[in-house]
Amino acid sequence: MKKSEDKKPVKIIPLGGLEQIGMNITAIEYEDTIVVVDCGLSFPDDEMLGIDLVIPDVTYLKENADRVKGLVITHGHEDHIGAIPYVEKEINMPIYATKLTMGIIEGKLKEHNLMQNIKRKVVKHGQIINLGCLRVEFIKTNHSIADASALAIYTPAGIIVHTGDFKVDYTPVFGEAIDLQRFAELGKKGVLALLCDSTNVERPGFTMSERTVGRTFDTIFADNQDHRIIVATFASNVDRVQQIVNSAYKFGRKVVVEGRSMVNIITVAEELGYIQIPDNTLIDIEQLKNYPDEKTVLITTGSQGENMAALSRIAANIHRKVSIKPGDTVILSSTPIPGNEKAVSKIINELEMKGAKVIFQDTHVSGHACQEEIKLIYTLTKPRYAVPVHGEYRHLKCHAELAESLGIDKQHICILSSGDVLELCDDYAEVTGSVPTQGILVDGLGVGDVGNIVLRDRQLLSQNGLIIVTVTLEGGSNQVLAGPDIVSRGFVYVRESENLMEECRDVAEDALNRCLDHNVTDWGKIKLTIRDDLSEFLWRRTKRNPMILPIITEV
Amino acid sequence: MKKSEDKKPVKIIPLGGLEQIGMNITAIEYEDTIVVVDCGLSFPDDEMLGIDLVIPDVTYLKENADRVKGLVITHGHEDHIGAIPYVEKEINMPIYATKLTMGIIEGKLKEHNLMQNIKRKVVKHGQIINLGCLRVEFIKTNHSIADASALAIYTPAGIIVHTGDFKVDYTPVFGEAIDLQRFAELGKKGVLALLCDSTNVERPGFTMSERTVGRTFDTIFADNQDHRIIVATFASNVDRVQQIVNSAYKFGRKVVVEGRSMVNIITVAEELGYIQIPDNTLIDIEQLKNYPDEKTVLITTGSQGENMAALSRIAANIHRKVSIKPGDTVILSSTPIPGNEKAVSKIINELEMKGAKVIFQDTHVSGHACQEEIKLIYTLTKPRYAVPVHGEYRHLKCHAELAESLGIDKQHICILSSGDVLELCDDYAEVTGSVPTQGILVDGLGVGDVGNIVLRDRQLLSQNGLIIVTVTLEGGSNQVLAGPDIVSRGFVYVRESENLMEECRDVAEDALNRCLDHNVTDWGKIKLTIRDDLSEFLWRRTKRNPMILPIITEV
Repeated sequence: MKKSEDKKPVKIIPLGGLEQIGMNITAIEYEDTIVVVDCGLSFPDDEMLGIDLVIPDVTYLKENADRVKGLVITHGHEDHIGAIPYVEKEINMPIYATKLTMGIIEGKLKEHNLMQNIKRKVVKHGQIINLGCLRVEFIKTNHSIADASALAIYTPAGIIVHTGDFKVDYTPVFGEAIDLQRFAELGKKGVLALLCDSTNVERPGFTMSERTVGRTFDTIFADNQDHRIIVATFASNVDRVQQIVNSAYKFGRKVVVEGRSMVNIITVAEELGYIQIPDNTLIDIEQLKNYPDEKTVLITTGSQGENMAALSRIAANIHRKVSIKPGDTVILSSTPIPGNEKAVSKIINELEMKGAKVIFQDTHVSGHACQEEIKLIYTLTKPRYAVPVHGEYRHLKCHAELAESLGIDKQHICILSSGDVLELCDDYAEVTGSVPTQGILVDGLGVGDVGNIVLRDRQLLSQNGLIIVTVTLEGGSNQVLAGPDIVSRGFVYVRESENLMEECRDVAEDALNRCLDHNVTDWGKIKLTIRDDLSEFLWRRTKRNPMILPIITEV
Repeated sequence: MKKSEDKKPVKIIPLGGLEQIGMNITAIEYEDTIVVVDCGLSFPDDEMLGIDLVIPDVTYLKENADRVKGLVITHGHEDHIGAIPYVEKEINMPIYATKLTMGIIEGKLKEHNLMQNIKRKVVKHGQIINLGCLRVEFIKTNHSIADASALAIYTPAGIIVHTGDFKVDYTPVFGEAIDLQRFAELGKKGVLALLCDSTNVERPGFTMSERTVGRTFDTIFADNQDHRIIVATFASNVDRVQQIVNSAYKFGRKVVVEGRSMVNIITVAEELGYIQIPDNTLIDIEQLKNYPDEKTVLITTGSQGENMAALSRIAANIHRKVSIKPGDTVILSSTPIPGNEKAVSKIINELEMKGAKVIFQDTHVSGHACQEEIKLIYTLTKPRYAVPVHGEYRHLKCHAELAESLGIDKQHICILSSGDVLELCDDYAEVTGSVPTQGILVDGLGVGDVGNIVLRDRQLLSQNGLIIVTVTLEGGSNQVLAGPDIVSRGFVYVRESENLMEECRDVAEDALNRCLDHNVTDWGKIKLTIRDDLSEFLWRRTKRNPMILPIITEV
């Protein structure tokens, strides 16, 4: 890899989304122009106790705000648009997206009262927009949400193709198949780099068409004509909902849509013409009681076992309007996202205990390309460089091997980490620097006010609880006026452990007296002594490490 | 279902193990005799913060200790033997098990200093032991640990067959195939009830033989002759370790076994003749440096991504002796147990980032029977009653449907919950009562001293942290001598939130003064007012709910 001084490279900077799924945001930079691709959020890891969301660190974009010409969006999933309201408060960027995607984004902007300030432009597939010295073309793809796009980004250094999240569906439920011809044309022109979805790269073969799920629904509806049917699926999978509606209509059932996020998206999709619901098919949940069970279908959120989603509330009998009846047929039209397996299994158990039949086989297809589809895109675009995106390291690595098997030079395959600044031109590809990308934690209304120290404390408190030791000293004389007293939470059930608490008091008192006898007046030292003694005592007695918090008051 | 007064039924009481995998323990009771089958522990759910283990509640056995004649064990997995030391401290029962199983149990008894007091008897397959008015026969089966047994329990009401955890392996690595002939003979005699493993009942077909994994190992060893090989698997899968040793020997490699639980079990297995390791094959981890990488194999624990297991420590570079080198081939010889998917994926990422190649396809077979094997056992034993065991409700339900498909009368299929007392004889099967079965939580040395209140506190602390408000009042006058002062942990990063803390102080002070102005002297009321005001203020300001702990000291 060598640099020739006269040739200017384009920079590709993933600001999130690698190593960990979610929080997809990538800066594409050429001289005075930065274009941002997607702006997603991710959901907290298990260790991020109490955190609601994680959003990207956009320090780099803020520092170069004058060069940021726009935000282009590939599709309307949370991990690609969820952070828009937060980031737009920091850097005002015009947003470019296809119609349905923009509809969903606008819902978010409205919630955050941001509609006034932010320029937005709806883009059609095939359309090219000019952003500084870059041009961005939106290319039709297929995915588990309608209106998904790949992007061709024309830079003076060459064309970058970003697939977004995609699959190849020759028979999509809504609209056209992926525009493979355009990928081929771009390949003929010459593609500098392909940034391609890695989600399913470990899976051989081809992802099945969304339509195959529709056929399964028809079969299930035919087999269960005497029962109410409840289908849980992803809120944003409009085509899936369309197919459930189709089966319902075919079998003369009324449809109820339940779950806030699904109602929101289906409403937008219907307004914009992305779903066709026959007249008199959709009913309000209040009307459900007016129809016999076997003439109704409930479409709900909660297919991942999410605690507060409609299906969980129905299964747990805490939903206001619907509860499970013996004989109900529940279809889980999804597969568990890694990490959700236990929650999904719990829901299945709850539903079956209440007498429902739960069906989860052949009721879902992925929205992401498997190996053969990825190979197809490489073979059409013939990129000079491969930059695997959208995956954990294991997926990027597997993707790199797949690219190599297709004849891409190993030196031309770039596995990046979030924050890497990749410089790219015909002659070389090199990571020349890095920018900050640690996720910003959102907890309630707080953005970024919970960091590692707070999380460590929550972790410690969650494992062993805490013991508070209060002491009141007389100012000047350091005479003990009250205490030490012990208060504990989350440690042991106090009523049954009175002796232990009493012993803790004695240990703390001994430590305190030892300090005072030696004329130690530094409160820090006194606290440390109490903490150490008590910690050692409790480990010996209980093999536990509660947080110990001595509080000294002077009066 | 009707009762005839002259016929005495046998009672089957699962004291754990249903609804939730783990903690398998079942009482079989006839008149003055209770035999306990297995005595397992389970690992805590995600909500059981800080809990190490969960053991069964054996109140029922303690209350009937004079009738408990013995503990018979099907095999040596933690979910079948792990609670033995805890339970034996409560009720001293003689233990009956096959040789390897007993070897593993004795390891546990030694750790708990219980070897002196507890009678133990090693039983051979085919042998029958007399326990009060019951007789128990141990029958050879196959499973992912050697020496597994099914049990035929002869009662005056009829024969009960308990499969334990099993699969049908016609070509096992060690010893004989499952004794299908004996199952058939028992079927000819007449089996009253079959208690059969439900783990894999949702999977069609047949579980592959353990030997197939050996062939995969040979292929991988042949393909990776230039690299060090590290294989992670379950500590107790002695046959798996045998096959890794076989491949290592075949390819001229030395073997290191690493990870405490694996070393323990392999040591016992070798002493008792359940694993054959050729001379000069096993080396100590200290000797590893004396051999070229490509002549070594490391067999370790940690295939489930467990935090403190050997593989995790190696992957994270905190193992004392081994770290990953580029080119290492790591075989994960296991599939993630539901709930561990993310942890396993994390390990794969870490290993691959350090340059290792990770192989996890075709490197594992299950130890549990799939549908066709379960059907085989039913068809051989032709039980009058089917009692699905070892599974969550969804599995028991699926098992019930499978039994029905084999012609078992629906009225004769009993899906039990833990604690159900099932009375069973030729004429009827009926749940006639229930006994307590809530798991006992073990946290460090504490057994049962952490209950729901403590867990709720830990949950609350983990999500939002806590705020402590300290106030010192003068005795009698109730004059404020010090405070209110605010201390927080796990709430916000205090240095960046000084204003918020100051406002909290003000809110607490207002609440306190309002109480004192109104001559409220009840500390409970004062605390409640402070808590409510602060809670309301913080929700409004931050949309968070920290635990609020007012502490009043009187001097």
